[in-house]
Amino acid sequence: MIEFALFGAGRIGKIHASNLVRQAGARLKYVVDMHTPSAQALAQAHGAQVASVEQALADPAVGAVVIASSTDTHANLIIAAANAGKAVFCEKPVDLTIARSRESAEAVSRNGVVCMIGFQRRFDPTFAALKARIEAGEIGVPEMLIVTSRDPGAPPVDYIKSSGGIFKDMLIHDFDVFRWIMGDEAQSLHATGSCLTDPAVAAAGDIDSTAVTIRTQRGLLCQINTSRRAAYGYDQRFEVLGSKGMLQAGNVQPTQVTAWLAGGISTDVPEPFFLERYRQAYAAEMAHFVEAVTKGTPVRTTIEDGVKALELAELAMSSWRSGAAVDLPSSEEASVAEAL
Amino acid sequence: MIEFALFGAGRIGKIHASNLVRQAGARLKYVVDMHTPSAQALAQAHGAQVASVEQALADPAVGAVVIASSTDTHANLIIAAANAGKAVFCEKPVDLTIARSRESAEAVSRNGVVCMIGFQRRFDPTFAALKARIEAGEIGVPEMLIVTSRDPGAPPVDYIKSSGGIFKDMLIHDFDVFRWIMGDEAQSLHATGSCLTDPAVAAAGDIDSTAVTIRTQRGLLCQINTSRRAAYGYDQRFEVLGSKGMLQAGNVQPTQVTAWLAGGISTDVPEPFFLERYRQAYAAEMAHFVEAVTKGTPVRTTIEDGVKALELAELAMSSWRSGAAVDLPSSEEASVAEAL
Amino acid sequence: MIEFALFGAGRIGKIHASNLVRQAGARLKYVVDMHTPSAQALAQAHGAQVASVEQALADPAVGAVVIASSTDTHANLIIAAANAGKAVFCEKPVDLTIARSRESAEAVSRNGVVCMIGFQRRFDPTFAALKARIEAGEIGVPEMLIVTSRDPGAPPVDYIKSSGGIFKDMLIHDFDVFRWIMGDEAQSLHATGSCLTDPAVAAAGDIDSTAVTIRTQRGLLCQINTSRRAAYGYDQRFEVLGSKGMLQAGNVQPTQVTAWLAGGISTDVPEPFFLERYRQAYAAEMAHFVEAVTKGTPVRTTIEDGVKALELAELAMSSWRSGAAVDLPSSEEASVAEAL
Amino acid sequence: MIEFALFGAGRIGKIHASNLVRQAGARLKYVVDMHTPSAQALAQAHGAQVASVEQALADPAVGAVVIASSTDTHANLIIAAANAGKAVFCEKPVDLTIARSRESAEAVSRNGVVCMIGFQRRFDPTFAALKARIEAGEIGVPEMLIVTSRDPGAPPVDYIKSSGGIFKDMLIHDFDVFRWIMGDEAQSLHATGSCLTDPAVAAAGDIDSTAVTIRTQRGLLCQINTSRRAAYGYDQRFEVLGSKGMLQAGNVQPTQVTAWLAGGISTDVPEPFFLERYRQAYAAEMAHFVEAVTKGTPVRTTIEDGVKALELAELAMSSWRSGAAVDLPSSEEASVAEAL
Repeated sequence: MIEFALFGAGRIGKIHASNLVRQAGARLKYVVDMHTPSAQALAQAHGAQVASVEQALADPAVGAVVIASSTDTHANLIIAAANAGKAVFCEKPVDLTIARSRESAEAVSRNGVVCMIGFQRRFDPTFAALKARIEAGEIGVPEMLIVTSRDPGAPPVDYIKSSGGIFKDMLIHDFDVFRWIMGDEAQSLHATGSCLTDPAVAAAGDIDSTAVTIRTQRGLLCQINTSRRAAYGYDQRFEVLGSKGMLQAGNVQPTQVTAWLAGGISTDVPEPFFLERYRQAYAAEMAHFVEAVTKGTPVRTTIEDGVKALELAELAMSSWRSGAAVDLPSSEEASVAEAL
Repeated sequence: MIEFALFGAGRIGKIHASNLVRQAGARLKYVVDMHTPSAQALAQAHGAQVASVEQALADPAVGAVVIASSTDTHANLIIAAANAGKAVFCEKPVDLTIARSRESAEAVSRNGVVCMIGFQRRFDPTFAALKARIEAGEIGVPEMLIVTSRDPGAPPVDYIKSSGGIFKDMLIHDFDVFRWIMGDEAQSLHATGSCLTDPAVAAAGDIDSTAVTIRTQRGLLCQINTSRRAAYGYDQRFEVLGSKGMLQAGNVQPTQVTAWLAGGISTDVPEPFFLERYRQAYAAEMAHFVEAVTKGTPVRTTIEDGVKALELAELAMSSWRSGAAVDLPSSEEASVAEAL
Repeated sequence: MIEFALFGAGRIGKIHASNLVRQAGARLKYVVDMHTPSAQALAQAHGAQVASVEQALADPAVGAVVIASSTDTHANLIIAAANAGKAVFCEKPVDLTIARSRESAEAVSRNGVVCMIGFQRRFDPTFAALKARIEAGEIGVPEMLIVTSRDPGAPPVDYIKSSGGIFKDMLIHDFDVFRWIMGDEAQSLHATGSCLTDPAVAAAGDIDSTAVTIRTQRGLLCQINTSRRAAYGYDQRFEVLGSKGMLQAGNVQPTQVTAWLAGGISTDVPEPFFLERYRQAYAAEMAHFVEAVTKGTPVRTTIEDGVKALELAELAMSSWRSGAAVDLPSSEEASVAEAL
Repeated sequence: MIEFALFGAGRIGKIHASNLVRQAGARLKYVVDMHTPSAQALAQAHGAQVASVEQALADPAVGAVVIASSTDTHANLIIAAANAGKAVFCEKPVDLTIARSRESAEAVSRNGVVCMIGFQRRFDPTFAALKARIEAGEIGVPEMLIVTSRDPGAPPVDYIKSSGGIFKDMLIHDFDVFRWIMGDEAQSLHATGSCLTDPAVAAAGDIDSTAVTIRTQRGLLCQINTSRRAAYGYDQRFEVLGSKGMLQAGNVQPTQVTAWLAGGISTDVPEPFFLERYRQAYAAEMAHFVEAVTKGTPVRTTIEDGVKALELAELAMSSWRSGAAVDLPSSEEASVAEAL
């Protein structure tokens, strides 16, 4: 039995808590949140106690922590937890800066603790099945990846201001999907974008629509298109063209009802947003983390993956701002093997 | 907080137990099963105790029972539980005979207890959404219902021998779907069938492929086609033609992967069988039952529904054996209102 | 080069004319229609001449006739053309009576002329591909056939009065599809139906919604559901369950546009009616007929097929009127081989 | 009645000939091809005569020409035909150089003749319906266009050598689709690519896989992904995200058969290549040209469209070779209005 501390009792913290308590061998001991009523409510729902960060990390009974607090606390908590010898699950991104992300990774490495980053898409049943089918050779060698990633609507402008921008906030998932699916690292990257949905986004210094192209070290191609607003809901698709065929990952629809009416034949819009779309993925990633902690199995989404996705986001921002394609330093070549 | 006793610790009993313990306000107190190790294992998994039928029903703390034992025990347990004043959830069928089913319904009625029959399809998200859209008037007046109901493969012949035959075992669900979706009662019924998949089924006195047609009191039409074997998995679809359009309920697929290969464009086969296909439905029906018990809300699938579905199964057997269409007594007319 | 006479310059006559003139080796010499302006216009469009029935059949240069005139003229024209030694293409039905249909078949047989009935569905690319895949063994032994056949709206009541009723007018195509796809003959048949869309249909002594079940000599099952009105257009689907899987034939949609809007994901309604849905089928059947006439290849849809489909329609009417299932005389067994 | 001369009796010339002769008011008078047997065969099939370029252009009875000869002859023939006062239909591209393309356009303009370029995709029923629905406002303002354009396999290397490269040969269609669908002109363009399918393509100085991004003057985004090889056939899809929703244009499948087998649920691969996929589009574009010539209606695909698509192809080559994004001169702004 491993005891857990959870940092952050917000929307995503609640999901992690309910998934955590369903795992055999896991017990939620502490809930930590600056907002005490939230911490109390969540702790009570799962028979846990409210604690401070220090209390939770100082308790030798705590073997692992789940970090679901705001982005600006991630690096501090990872480092503190790693130094305390705890296994760490942390929501993406590690940090908004590469420097601080690397420091976090070094703390993890130095302390030899398990650390998993919450790239939940790798645990989505559809995406994971597609990846497994690529690995089984169904489409031969993957050559091109087309990612469509659209939110149902822009978040509040206040959120956007502190989000690090669309590349770090939203595309960081797509960059991780790219690395995972293609099993190769970027060699050059071009990003462009516009503010098309809401002038307030531009006023906050951000954009809401992007088009990114990546060419990998082996010459594979990837295109990512992103929008903050799809009127029909949360749109999360990708397709991989390989030498022997193509695999597509489609959206999840709430029901399988088809209506045949005078105006057309129609089915449901996709699940509305990430909490619904990735419900199964959140459950699977927490089971994966608990398994890693309790059985010593390797984690599928490491803190290095978190750093690398952030690096691509940083490059994309740079490309977008300059209007120029950017090349990656050749020292990245060594990382191909890791990604495979 | 209502305490529950569960009768039957087999496959379906385990599902009901795990769904039950997730409901706020419900506690599983007893597990009852002739096979003691099964009862013990399930009781232990959920912090319950093993008991006999008599012990469980004699405990005044028990407010409700879930009957998931073998079909031949259903009627006895419903009657005993009703007489003990417990709310009852019972798997279909109530009994293999109409007489005993009616006795069970009378015991429920006489004791004024809640009784719900496990027609889980009414709680399937797709089927329930379709029903709600009919009621919202999306396709105008429903006129024709086409039900496709195919198992992935025949059960063992020993099961078939004690099953009551394909009409009572398998089509009973389809008959309930018919009554629920069309909101009308049968006036005439014609059933035919064949043994096409396995001669052992015929040797057991049963058939494995059926074609049933129902004409309702209002003249609406329903066709049901059933097979014990669909090579591609569990096939559960229906479509309703109405005056303004059609609604179709499709199968559930495990993933949303589409493969484009030289031989064709393909997606997953449906979920393999009822435990997977109706996973959400089983959870929803137990929540519905707990709500009915704790809040006094009406149950959607009454014991009368159970009796009526059995009556249709009996008529279908009669039609199949005689080769003739059968008419229903006109006294059934009164029940139209109930079904609406 | 074979010269043709066309009887009937209406809607379907025009289609046959334009398909005929595109065939190498075929020339349209005469157009015959009681309504002279129609005959003249169609003749002029294709460089043909207007003639009377007698003139056309007396011309030894005419090798073949296409009969697209009203149903009540079919038998007379078949017999006259056969006696004149002409090859015959005739729209369905041969006649509304079995007796007259058989006389027509005998005239064809006696004169040894080619005679093809316009069951165009057998030439539809989707239906023909499905049939070929059954024959290639893709789904093993076919066991159940489900046919959905719905018109976009009822014809004028005057048409209904002279149509012979829904079974002879509309289901005759479905009965032919049944015989063709299953490669077996009916042993028993049950038909029921209602007037649900328009009371005027009932006033004309007909129904607009039917549910037919056929059990074949080998025990195979077929269900046909039909409506005169599908609000979403012309609905022509069927599916065949076999021992190794299922094949479905779907509708044809005018375009491949999919709209993702807030209210749902939608595609086009099917092609509006038979002229559009079976456009390719009409072209293919005429090419098939010209090939049969010019090269002596066998026709796929014989006058015997026309008689047998009419017999099923007659039985369906009888079943519907009596409310009873009907059995076919066992002398039908010999015809199984023909249907294969 | 307008008389036509056809230059080029190859594969595409034959298609244009057969579509031309079906148009009321059009007559094919001459077929011109250096390969005399081809010219003779095609002329004979349609009752035309074989002629030289000079003869055909000198005949005052010839009102229009169709240029379907090899790319290197296009500009010369356009200029000669325009100078002779003939209306011109010319296959894409106008020429492989912008300079010569502009000279051709100037000749057309100077002589005031009708000139239409064979961008047949604008006449595809699916693509044209999608465009009409955008114009009707169904998805609000179009914001992003994603084009997937994949051939079933690379052409012979000899063809590639003389093709002008993948951007001028293959993407020129996609560039035209981009301008047509988005109704805006490029402001910046980035292209990258690789040789992934066959080293012989690289040896010929070309690539077989490309990823192009265009940002328009109004800030709209477009991504085009292209491959010379899709193992599953000819893949021609695009989707447009707008402020109110999305429209997708899908592939055309030969039949509507769906197979449900143990290994999956599958439908047909797309039509194999452009001759089949765009069969209806070729017919519609020729009807459009004949209408323009006979009735004076404007053509939908002008020679200016041909020049502009070539300019984008030239820019894409430049971007690909340099690895840098390229900006377009602002003088292009004036052309926005034309494209709308």
